[in-house]
Order: sequence, then structure tokens, then C-alpha cells
Amino acid sequence: MTTLVTSGKTKELYTTENDDVLRAHYTDHTTAGDGLRNELIDNKGAVNNQISSLIFGYLNQNGVATHFIEQVSETDQLNKKVEMIPLEVVVRNFAAGHFQKRFGTDYLQTLKQPVVEFFYKDNDLHDPIVTKSDAVGLDLLSAEKLEQLEAAGLKVNQVLTDLFNKMNVTLVDFKLEFGINADGEIILADEISPDSCRLLDKDTNESLDKDVFRKQTGDMMPGYLEILHRLQKAI
Amino acid sequence: MTTLVTSGKTKELYTTENDDVLRAHYTDHTTAGDGLRNELIDNKGAVNNQISSLIFGYLNQNGVATHFIEQVSETDQLNKKVEMIPLEVVVRNFAAGHFQKRFGTDYLQTLKQPVVEFFYKDNDLHDPIVTKSDAVGLDLLSAEKLEQLEAAGLKVNQVLTDLFNKMNVTLVDFKLEFGINADGEIILADEISPDSCRLLDKDTNESLDKDVFRKQTGDMMPGYLEILHRLQKAI
Ligand SMILES: Nc1ncnc2c1ncn2[C@@H]1O[C@H](COP(=O)(O)OP(=O)(O)OP(=O)(O)O)[C@@H](O)[C@H]1O
Ligand SMILES: Nc1ncnc2c1ncn2[C@@H]1O[C@H](COP(=O)(O)OP(=O)(O)OP(=O)(O)O)[C@@H](O)[C@H]1O
Ligand SMILES: [Mg+2]
Ligand SMILES: [Mg+2]
Repeated sequence: MTTLVTSGKTKELYTTENDDVLRAHYTDHTTAGDGLRNELIDNKGAVNNQISSLIFGYLNQNGVATHFIEQVSETDQLNKKVEMIPLEVVVRNFAAGHFQKRFGTDYLQTLKQPVVEFFYKDNDLHDPIVTKSDAVGLDLLSAEKLEQLEAAGLKVNQVLTDLFNKMNVTLVDFKLEFGINADGEIILADEISPDSCRLLDKDTNESLDKDVFRKQTGDMMPGYLEILHRLQKAI
Repeated sequence: MTTLVTSGKTKELYTTENDDVLRAHYTDHTTAGDGLRNELIDNKGAVNNQISSLIFGYLNQNGVATHFIEQVSETDQLNKKVEMIPLEVVVRNFAAGHFQKRFGTDYLQTLKQPVVEFFYKDNDLHDPIVTKSDAVGLDLLSAEKLEQLEAAGLKVNQVLTDLFNKMNVTLVDFKLEFGINADGEIILADEISPDSCRLLDKDTNESLDKDVFRKQTGDMMPGYLEILHRLQKAI
């Protein structure tokens, strides 16, 4: 028997026969504007499950500890169950999105070095930004674990920037979520997909990601499929 | 001859015969709500000049390098001229204000340890919060100088928490501004007064600071005068 453990805006997590393993089911739900827009986009779940499986498999092989075990169907994958840390870890190579707006920079302004930001996952508070000092003061996480998250974010950025460069894609920024496993170790969880990354074709600077949906500039699925196909070739 | 070098919402800075020295004139202007409210409150400039002079003199004697030279009249003091760093450094011992709102905490919720936050001084951007990682990525300041600012903020907090404790006052939070002198050293500048601190009487939890003006709960000057008188006794 399999029961629903938790469901978020885009994925449903189910139990498996193994207590330490969850099955993640990727749905077609696509959200924007703090969840105000929520639409079903045909095939998105299957494509993101495949993209996220490829990327997490690649990270596993390149020195990043992740929750990913294996893809088990078009829309489903097996993940190690973890205690989620209620922080979004955002890594930025170029200014875009909230960062661009907050600091009034140009779109894609170059940063002196990659930036890592934390956001506290709380829908009622609209995921506020939280500095490391805030997080320690609020007793959300130890200073040591925050340093580990930052280092892990930068390591993922290094591995993925190289991978996407080979695919002729610029990794502008992305969002990670981490969990703590039974041994108290921090491991990368959740997903990495065009829902959670800004990805630009290097030749055209065209968005191959959810910005197409956010900005309502067209059909986002061709970009998602392009990322999938380039990943399949590169990995 | 003396000319106006710069003026902000509450102070005017004038040249002196000495190129390295400015005269700060404290005005009665009192602002709130991102500068939307701006009122003249009789005697506020003189009281804040005296409070800030006492506190900066005390910091000079207690191992904190500051711009303060001497008070020269009821409303004026001499300061070393510095190149201002465009960051507000906020130190918090208990949750209040923006922090309370951002994280939905209780008023005066205890923090596990003092929190230091940076805000980028830019009126058009409404002084956005900036993490150390953001600040380095945006090339606002080096990581080393940011660490120095954080350490200086915590040191000031230690010295002032002890001082205010002796005055039966709780130091909830405060805002500092720093500058860089001719030798490239970071020194504390601007002011420390009930305009820039949250100060509570320990017996009554009554605000002896600008929150009385912000919340429009009465006349703020008795609280300011109370702080001045307790400082004159304690120092
Ligand atoms: N390995 C894992 N173990 C346990 N939970 C996980 C794991 N990986 C991801 N999750 C959680 O699965 C949930 C569903 O993911 P989904 O992306 O749909 O949520 P979300 O809408 O982004 O976030 P939320 O609904 O929590 O605000 C999230 O709460 C996520 O933190
Ligand atoms: N030692 C110093 N040398 C040079 N400038 C200083 C010094 N101390 C303070 N200042 C600057 O004096 C100006 C006037 O102070 P005031 O408090 O009125 O400004 P503000 O309204 O808080 O800030 P601003 O107007 O810059 O947004 C500020 O820009 C402040 O940074
Ligand atoms: Mg999600
Ligand atoms: Mg000021």
C-alpha cells in the first residue's frame, strides 16, 4: 500500500515499502506570482521528472550528496526521505528576478562572485529573505549548518555551470532545498528543473525556463524540452 | 567661512577651518514611514546632539573608534570627516520593527544571539536588506570589511547594552553607520540617539525612543529627555 505523505504546489510524495524511501510524483501544476497563478501545463511533470532525474544523477556522480535514487516512471522517481530544512537556498551568477528588483540592477548584470541567499519557507510570510545572522538569531539552524548549505550551494553551482556551459546554456540562477537524513547529514533534496532555474540559450539569450510562463511570453514547453534533449546529449 | 557639505533628513554637515573636521548641526526634523512623515519637534535636535555626544564620547573611551571629537554647542558637534559606507548596520537583541514583521515574531521575542543586518542606503530602492553575499556580489564592499562592520556592530552592542542596563533601560535594537577615514580604517560615524535605537524602561517596558512618534502614542520628548538625564548620571 502506498499513501500520500505530503504534497506541495507541484509534487506529491508517497510512501514506498521502504520506510527510508519516498516516491515523488511530478504533476503538471505550474505556479507563479507567489502561487497566485496555478495552471496545468500538459507534459510538464514528465519533462521535469526526467530533467531533475538526469541532473540529480549527475550531481550524485560529481561529489554532491543528494536524495535521488532512481527514476521509476515518466512522472515518478524514488528519493531518500529526509527532514526538510525550511530554507530555500538561491544561488545567482547574474542579476535577475527578485534580486534585480531589490537592487535596481540591469537584467543579467554580472556579479563579482556568485551570490547565495536564503529564504525562509513560509507561505503566510511570503518566503522572506533571511540572513545567516537572522537564521541563527531565530534558532532556525546553526551557523555551522548554514555554512554547509552555502558551500553546498556553491559546489552545485560549479558542477551545473560547467554542465550547462557544455549545453550552450547560461545558468543565471537557481533555487535549492536541502534536508537532513537519519545520520544528521545535509543532503540536497527537492528538484532542479526549469521551474527552479533561470536558463538561457547562449546564442539567442532566450529563456528556456519558467520565465516564459511568469512573463506570459509564449509556450514554455519547447524550452523545457530543449533543456531535456541537450541534457540527454551532454550527460 | 563655513559651507554646507551635505544635509540629510535630520542633520546638516558644515565645513570647519580644518579640512578633516566637519560640524554636525542636529535639527528638530523627525521622520517616519520611509520619510513620508516629517515633522519639526521642538528641542529634539539639541537633546539628540547631547545624547549622541555622550554616547560617542563613551564609545571612544571604551575601545570603539568613532568620528566624534567634541560637542561645541547645544545643537552642534565636531566630527572627523569620513567617506560614508552606504550601508545601515542594524543590531538586534529582541525582535521588533521590520524584523518582527518580516518573520511574524512576537514583539520583543528573545533572539538566540544578537542579530546584525545590513541595509543598502538608497532612497529610491527604499533601503533594501543586503546580505554579506549580496554586498560582495554587487561589489559594494569587500567580505573582509563586511566582517569588520559586523564585529564593530557587536562590540558597540556589548558596550551599550551594559551602559543602558546600568540606566535601567533595555537596548532592543539600533542602527549604525560607518565611514572610512583617510587611513582606510573603518570608524563609527553618524549618530546614536533615540531616533536610531529602540530603548525601553525596564520597569514599565515604556518606549523612550522614536517609536512614540512612529506609533503616534503621545509626546516623544519626555522619553528622549529621560534618556539624556539617565545618561548624564551613568557616564
Ligand atoms: N527527499 C525528500 N524528503 C521529504 N520531503 C521532500 C523531499 N524532497 C522534497 N520534499 C518536499 O516535498 C514537498 C512537495 O514539493 P513541491 O515542490 O510540490 O512543494 P512546494 O510547493 O515547492 O513547497 P511547499 O508546498 O512546501 O511550499 C515540499 O514540501 C518539499 O520540501
Ligand atoms: N563623520 C561623517 N562624515 C561625513 N558624513 C557623515 C558623517 N557622519 C554622518 N554623515 C552623513 O551625514 C548625512 C546627514 O545625516 P542625516 O542623519 O541627516 O542623514 P539621513 O537622512 O539619515 O540619511 P540620508 O539623507 O543620507 O539618506 C548622512 O548622509 C550621513 O551619512
Ligand atoms: Mg517546489
Ligand atoms: Mg540619519
